Formats: sequence, structure tokens, C-alpha cells
Amino acid sequence: MKTYLDCIPCFIRQTLDAVRVVTDEFAVQETMLRDVLRLTSEMDLSQSPPRIGQLIHRRLRELTGNKDPYAEVKKRFNTMALEMLPELRSRIKAAEDPFTAAVRLAITGNIIDFGPKSNVTEKDALDAIETALSDPLYGDAAAFREMVENASSILYIGDNAGEIMFDRLLIEQLPLKRVTFAVRGAPVINDAVYEDAEQAGLTHLVDVIDSGSDAPGTLLEDCSEEFIRNFRAADIIIAKGQGNFETLSESDGNMVFLFKAKCPVIASHAGTKLGAQVLWHKK
Amino acid sequence: MKTYLDCIPCFIRQTLDAVRVVTDEFAVQETMLRDVLRLTSEMDLSQSPPRIGQLIHRRLRELTGNKDPYAEVKKRFNTMALEMLPELRSRIKAAEDPFTAAVRLAITGNIIDFGPKSNVTEKDALDAIETALSDPLYGDAAAFREMVENASSILYIGDNAGEIMFDRLLIEQLPLKRVTFAVRGAPVINDAVYEDAEQAGLTHLVDVIDSGSDAPGTLLEDCSEEFIRNFRAADIIIAKGQGNFETLSESDGNMVFLFKAKCPVIASHAGTKLGAQVLWHKK
Repeated sequence: MKTYLDCIPCFIRQTLDAVRVVTDEFAVQETMLRDVLRLTSEMDLSQSPPRIGQLIHRRLRELTGNKDPYAEVKKRFNTMALEMLPELRSRIKAAEDPFTAAVRLAITGNIIDFGPKSNVTEKDALDAIETALSDPLYGDAAAFREMVENASSILYIGDNAGEIMFDRLLIEQLPLKRVTFAVRGAPVINDAVYEDAEQAGLTHLVDVIDSGSDAPGTLLEDCSEEFIRNFRAADIIIAKGQGNFETLSESDGNMVFLFKAKCPVIASHAGTKLGAQVLWHKK
Repeated sequence: MKTYLDCIPCFIRQTLDAVRVVTDEFAVQETMLRDVLRLTSEMDLSQSPPRIGQLIHRRLRELTGNKDPYAEVKKRFNTMALEMLPELRSRIKAAEDPFTAAVRLAITGNIIDFGPKSNVTEKDALDAIETALSDPLYGDAAAFREMVENASSILYIGDNAGEIMFDRLLIEQLPLKRVTFAVRGAPVINDAVYEDAEQAGLTHLVDVIDSGSDAPGTLLEDCSEEFIRNFRAADIIIAKGQGNFETLSESDGNMVFLFKAKCPVIASHAGTKLGAQVLWHKK
């Protein structure tokens, strides 16, 4: 997906939100904002929004000297989500259609995203879970289930820390031996990296690889050979979150995108409503 | 008032909104946005927000070749407000305290502002009027009345077209012979210029001058000698709207600012709540 003009004011606001999460120093906040204004004034709009997100967050880490500014946030949401696992598992077990319930909860976990909104709270996540099983799901969960049952290899590309506990619930419904889970190659925003997959217990459950990239999405030209090999070989790719949708929605491959449509541009690109739970199949 | 970091994402969003009001051409929208990103990346934050507003809207007029992009919007809101005058006048007459009612309505007129929000509708204005007389007023209207009664000269600095019909209602409560009304020196956003004062019938009622400047506020260093003479000589200056508040709140003079606090930065600077009707006296 290209970058729309509407994305630009949002980048600037996100930059200010993000630098304030990391530092109280006004001079650093000002420099960061000026740098991103200059960067976006020259940006290539044919690139997808996570490309500029990657550049913004590289600059943030460089300016603040903090290699993982969201480390604390990631731990907090991993712990919160981990504590919720038994309760969520019993909800899935009690559901009429456990697979679809797991899909819905995996999508709901996508609320834990500090890209668009820097002040996601535990309450936001809990509120989202309460409506996840009753809110409409935009997409065909039955067809999705059939696809995964018949797939000989599944690449599941995760999105955020905390959220990956919810992904685990869906992964538990998949043929485990045929699943590879992918995280980002380096810290960016609150996106999940290898340590988060370990904390989620995913490394004991399935093969875990990383993208080799610090983009908050999957910029294929930026990914490692190992990742690309897995990507090309997979029968089906399950891609979580807006960042993966923005970067992969026009790439080749049998892909199912699972995400909450948290911004009007993406909702419109996906043909759904703002806030929708989306299962978007692209052949 | 200086420019806060929070103002910057807002400038970028306002730029996109404004250029879309003026043209559907994507290339012009993109150029405009890139120019303002570059401009703000280098801006002097010690200047007040209307200074960057002035530069943004100069560039908008230059790029689109349209000297008065909001001409249509201004006419529309002038006409709407003009049609409402008899009804509003009878509300003021029926009020227990007609002066305070006129103050409240003058503040309410400040909703007709295409600076912060490009999609103000007639319905927004009508809804605002419905609550204007009952919503709390932050400030001392009685003290304000005493001041204007004792003033030998009053400079009333207007803000937007449409809104100046509401200003007329308050001006009708003032000692007319001692009032000078000021408009902007040239079109900028939907700010009132001389023609709007004529359409509001103000030129028949009081002396009308202009600021000599195309800033959406009152940048004294940018104003004409005539304006400055009037500004310095006035016993009391009534300054309408956020733009005048932002540019004059730290200047010398006995000033009363009347405005709706439409943005969190200004509400915080004025020590009021977002959306408040503010009468702010600065000696």
C-alpha cells in the first residue's frame, strides 16, 4: 500500500507521541520533530507507511541513545496477556466454534499497538476482548480454517508484543508442526522480537524466525534470506496487524491478513469500517 | 503565545484540510504539504502560531493562484448569520442580562472558524447558539460591562466572516461613537476583511479599519501605522477569537479576549477547559 497524504499528519503526531514516551527533554523532542518534518517533506509516497515508520523509529533510537525505547511497555503487555491466557483459552474451549473464536481473539490482540496510538492501556485491551466474540468479523473464517487444514506449511508473521499471546491462542488451533512464526529482526515501536516469542512460549511450540529487518511491517526488500525463503515456500501466510497489511497487501503469495482497522486510510483500503475486525484473504 | 510542539501536527493536518478545500488536484495538494513540512521543520517556535498560519496560507494562495480561497465560504456564513440576526436580537432583548447574552453570542460566533477545522457547518453554528446562553462563561461579564461603559475609546478586533454578525450584536450594546472595529488587511482563511464588515452593516455603525496584515491574528510588527495608532490609543481592546488571543495575549494594553477555546493548547494557556466560552481580561 502506498502512503496517502492523510498518513502524513498522522506520522507527525505519532512522532511527537513516540518521542514523549521515550524522553521528557524538550530539546530532544524538538529535534526529533524537526527531523521527521524534514524527512517527510522529501519522502517517496510510493513506499508503504511502515517504511517511513522504520526511518522515524531509527531516528528516535539514534537521538535518544535508547536501543529499545518500548522495552518496558512490551514486557508489561506480555505479562498482562500471559496472565489472561487461561481465561481466554477457556472462552475458546466453551465457544461453539473454537477456531473462529481464536481468530477473533487474535485480531483483538492487535489493539495492543503503540504505532498509531501511544497510550494504549490494559483497559483498552480488556474492553476489546469483551466485545471480540460478539462484534462482526469481516471475512470468511470457515474458508480460512479449510485453508490452514490443507496447508503443508504456514508462515505466521506476528505484529506486537502482548498481541503475540493472542496469536498463540490461534496457533494452538493450527497444525503446529507445519507452522513457522516470524517476528521483527530488531526492536521497533512495541513490535514483537524473538525475546517476546520466547516470553509467549512460542519458541517451544513452533519454529520461530525473524524478518531480519527493523521495519514495523514486512518490507520484503529489507528482509533476510532465511525469511524470504520461508515466505516463498509457505502454502499460506498469516500476517497480523496493520503494518504487515500495509507492506504485503500487494505482494505475491497466498496471504490472510488479520487485523483491527485502526485508521480510516487502512479501513478504506481494506473496504471495511473503522474499528472492524478484519480477515482479509489475498490470493 | 509561543508555538507549542503540539501545534505542529495540527498545522500539518490543517494544511491538508485547507488545500483540499481549495483544489482537488493531487499534485498541488502534495506540493503544498511538502512545502509546509519543510517550512515547519525550520520554524521559529518563539513566534506565535498565527505567524506560521500566515506563511501557510500565503503559500496556499500562491500555489493555487487563488487570492481568496475562502470567498465562497465567507459569503455563505455571512448570509446565514445575517438571516439569524433578528432572532438573535430578540433573544438578547428577552434575556435577563442583555449585555452578557450579547457577550455569550459573540463568543459563540467564534465557532465559525475554518482555521482549526475546515468542515464547520451551519448546523455546528446553530447547535452552538442553542447552548450559548446556558453554557458557563469563563470570565467576569459584569466587570467587562463596567469597563466598556467607562472607556473613552474601544478597539474591537474581529476574527472571522459570519462571526462578525455576532460581533455586531455585542457592538450594538457598546457606546457606538467610541468604537472602532478592525478587520484583517487581506484575505486569509475565512477571516473577516473590509467587505465582510460592509456585509455585516458594521461600516454604517462604527469606524472600520484594517490591520494592514494578512496574518490570521494580530502580529503587531506586521500591522499598519494606522492600526498601531488605534491600538495604542484605545482605552480597551476587545479581541475576538483564538488567533488574536495567540498573538496578543502577551502584548501591552488593556485587553479583553473573547473566544471559544477550540484547541487543548489554547485552553491550557488560558487556564480553561476545551470548548469553554472564554472572557479573558489582561491588563
